[in-house]
Amino acid sequence: MNKFIKISEENKFIDNEITELQIGKEVEVFGMVHNTRITKWGGFIILRKAKGLLQTVLQNESSEIFGIDGKKIKVNELSRESAVKIVGIVNKANIKDVSVYYKTLEITVKSIQVLSIPNTDNLIDVTSLSYESEANFTFKLDNRQITLRNTRDIAIFKISSLISKAFVDYLNSKSFTQIYTPKIVSAGAEGGANIFELEYFGKKAFLAQSPQFYKQICVGVFERVFEIAPVYRAEKHSTSRHLNEYISIDLEMGFIKDHNDIMRFEAEILRYVLEQIGENCKHELAVLNATLPKLPYEIPVYRLSEVHEVLHQHYSDKLSQDHRGEPDLAPEEEVFICDYASKEFNSDFVFVTHFPRKHRAFYSMDDPNDPELTLSFDLLMKGREITSGSQRIHDENQYRIKMLDLGMNPDNFKFYLDTFKNGMPPHGGLAIGLERLTAGILNIQNVKEASLFPRDINRITP
Amino acid sequence: MNKFIKISEENKFIDNEITELQIGKEVEVFGMVHNTRITKWGGFIILRKAKGLLQTVLQNESSEIFGIDGKKIKVNELSRESAVKIVGIVNKANIKDVSVYYKTLEITVKSIQVLSIPNTDNLIDVTSLSYESEANFTFKLDNRQITLRNTRDIAIFKISSLISKAFVDYLNSKSFTQIYTPKIVSAGAEGGANIFELEYFGKKAFLAQSPQFYKQICVGVFERVFEIAPVYRAEKHSTSRHLNEYISIDLEMGFIKDHNDIMRFEAEILRYVLEQIGENCKHELAVLNATLPKLPYEIPVYRLSEVHEVLHQHYSDKLSQDHRGEPDLAPEEEVFICDYASKEFNSDFVFVTHFPRKHRAFYSMDDPNDPELTLSFDLLMKGREITSGSQRIHDENQYRIKMLDLGMNPDNFKFYLDTFKNGMPPHGGLAIGLERLTAGILNIQNVKEASLFPRDINRITP
Repeated sequence: MNKFIKISEENKFIDNEITELQIGKEVEVFGMVHNTRITKWGGFIILRKAKGLLQTVLQNESSEIFGIDGKKIKVNELSRESAVKIVGIVNKANIKDVSVYYKTLEITVKSIQVLSIPNTDNLIDVTSLSYESEANFTFKLDNRQITLRNTRDIAIFKISSLISKAFVDYLNSKSFTQIYTPKIVSAGAEGGANIFELEYFGKKAFLAQSPQFYKQICVGVFERVFEIAPVYRAEKHSTSRHLNEYISIDLEMGFIKDHNDIMRFEAEILRYVLEQIGENCKHELAVLNATLPKLPYEIPVYRLSEVHEVLHQHYSDKLSQDHRGEPDLAPEEEVFICDYASKEFNSDFVFVTHFPRKHRAFYSMDDPNDPELTLSFDLLMKGREITSGSQRIHDENQYRIKMLDLGMNPDNFKFYLDTFKNGMPPHGGLAIGLERLTAGILNIQNVKEASLFPRDINRITP
Repeated sequence: MNKFIKISEENKFIDNEITELQIGKEVEVFGMVHNTRITKWGGFIILRKAKGLLQTVLQNESSEIFGIDGKKIKVNELSRESAVKIVGIVNKANIKDVSVYYKTLEITVKSIQVLSIPNTDNLIDVTSLSYESEANFTFKLDNRQITLRNTRDIAIFKISSLISKAFVDYLNSKSFTQIYTPKIVSAGAEGGANIFELEYFGKKAFLAQSPQFYKQICVGVFERVFEIAPVYRAEKHSTSRHLNEYISIDLEMGFIKDHNDIMRFEAEILRYVLEQIGENCKHELAVLNATLPKLPYEIPVYRLSEVHEVLHQHYSDKLSQDHRGEPDLAPEEEVFICDYASKEFNSDFVFVTHFPRKHRAFYSMDDPNDPELTLSFDLLMKGREITSGSQRIHDENQYRIKMLDLGMNPDNFKFYLDTFKNGMPPHGGLAIGLERLTAGILNIQNVKEASLFPRDINRITP
């Protein structure tokens, strides 16, 4: 006969967590041996657990260690990266080591049972990896499946996970619906050649460069939507700022007055996200020696043309050339305007608005006061663009006219244009790159460090 | 000079929500005209808003309507799917119409300002779409960008969004880290020919069939991980159960005893998810006329071989053939074992375990008591598989032996196998299809209805 899976039975396994309530009690704890330090009197075994590192203390006399075959072994036979079950007593502690998560508790070991062992030939030491040299960085990425086990990387992705959750929580609280839209698409939303192509049952298809069309469509359905999902850019460069596959946090909302509503909303979201990191990731920030960026209650906003002017006035000795009149921000301008905003306004964030219509995606609303410009913005943070957004066109005829004007064929976008034909509210939205946001918040130079398994022109493994 | 985006300023736009606190007060509300009903004394205009439908009441004498050009229009000139701003008074109401979200409030209209209008030629009536005929279903999918605006679809995807959030909340509370892993990969995890291929800067690459390799790798880093992301199956059939791109809720955790720990955990998660739907989606369940599935505290569990036996005993008159000895569940068996579990145990869920190793993915742990079987399971719900899971192999050598035995070349999986070489805890996990789970919970026959923009062998638009 059959048996049953019982939901209500005590589930020690799932909730297994060490807390101060257990001080003085015997517990079972599971983890990977992250590091060991052997002393005359016994030593320390540092366990890597779901929340972080836990210190356990060996007593030379009374702590017993059993190998994977059940036979007793010596402490120097216990390899790093072994999986173990430890039985011991929870004790109060006051641990200074910044890498240890459990600061106020430690386990005095009675016994250790080894559950699995690594192949100790050429074991990669995850405790000593540094990012300092280019060679090390390549080695780290080439062996990402193992090198991620160091405390610095763990802290980065714990914070990345929390950022994702903070967006979900905040946007749900503001009546947003989370959507999942296809990444296999029949037409690119951002135009250009930077698109991956695939064969889809004999038809030509593409990998979505953004969920732009779909999130706009969904504004007509749900009024406020967001998506957190991968997007694909077939850009042929390998820089510290680009990934060919990255996670885009996209939102789109109806009934805005103009792009300022979106910018204001983004500022509020970022405040919430930073607060959440500050409250919940103190340990991870300490491991990374990171302080949260300065987000003042008043974030400076410049038109693109003003950025050119301001930098010409104040940074002409540092600029490689005069950028006035250019249709976009030069990379050096992104750096200098952030420097300026930091010094003048104590802000690590600065909005830049009113990009020219010919250099902005076709769906951006033209500025009624200057039809050469658009109601668009970028948000820069510490020298790097982390967001693009705009008010969008919501009228079918305006789309057709602008598409023809930009040399596009409206017939290639039938289902998209049909949406507007059937009525759409005024709306706008933005996209934030999760990796760039994480890297920016944590002062990480190369955005690849904020991607678990980065994809660039040379890299599809691991 | 520049201006500022001020975070602290009153943000009526973002928090704009109608509540009982506003009864008797004048408010501005925004929405799409979902439906209108004109009477002699005035009539009703039903607005579609972010949370759902809101009833507004026209007074023939005193309600003024202004067209998009600012000129006064008559109520019969106000088209459905216009975007409007309404100024009016909040009144108490007691609305019976199941499709209306705001049941206790309505707005008595002072004025309506039209903000945008549809092209009224061939406007699709989203209020009257039915799913009853195959032709209608094809029409609905072909025009998904518009037909989603009906209240039934909105309810489905509100619940789908909540399911996604419930997983995020629950798994975070159990120390899981949310991960985002690449969908452009160098090798398929599930084997077989059902994989989409693409060219990646001159190299051959694939779209991930599952995040299997990456989530296992991440168990070595974070111990407990989950991912909610698209996966791709190049299966050449178009059925009511399959999608070529779908959202997989994947989780993977270390230090399990065996697959039973994963099954027990899944039961607890599902209980939480159903509770959340019951609490937060009463309106949507009513719109769909759906009752939540029966999830008893004891969920029946059968070995695959037992399912064959039980159905042979009790359903031989209904079975098209004798399935005893077969290496998998036949589709009709999925239906009948669920029927049996419902009648015998009052459960809409049933676990099936111990699938043969030759018919299960190579990473499944072999059963120590019968090496022809694996420590694997499926969870069936109302006649359909919604989950596959198992304990995984965690030893490099066991992987190599099994791969060779199954005719695979271990050299093609180097980065994956290197993970185990560097030590891995005993672990296991599962994958749940979000669309199948949503469809199952809501008693929806075709899984495509639970995908915003479904992809099948014939469909890459909209």
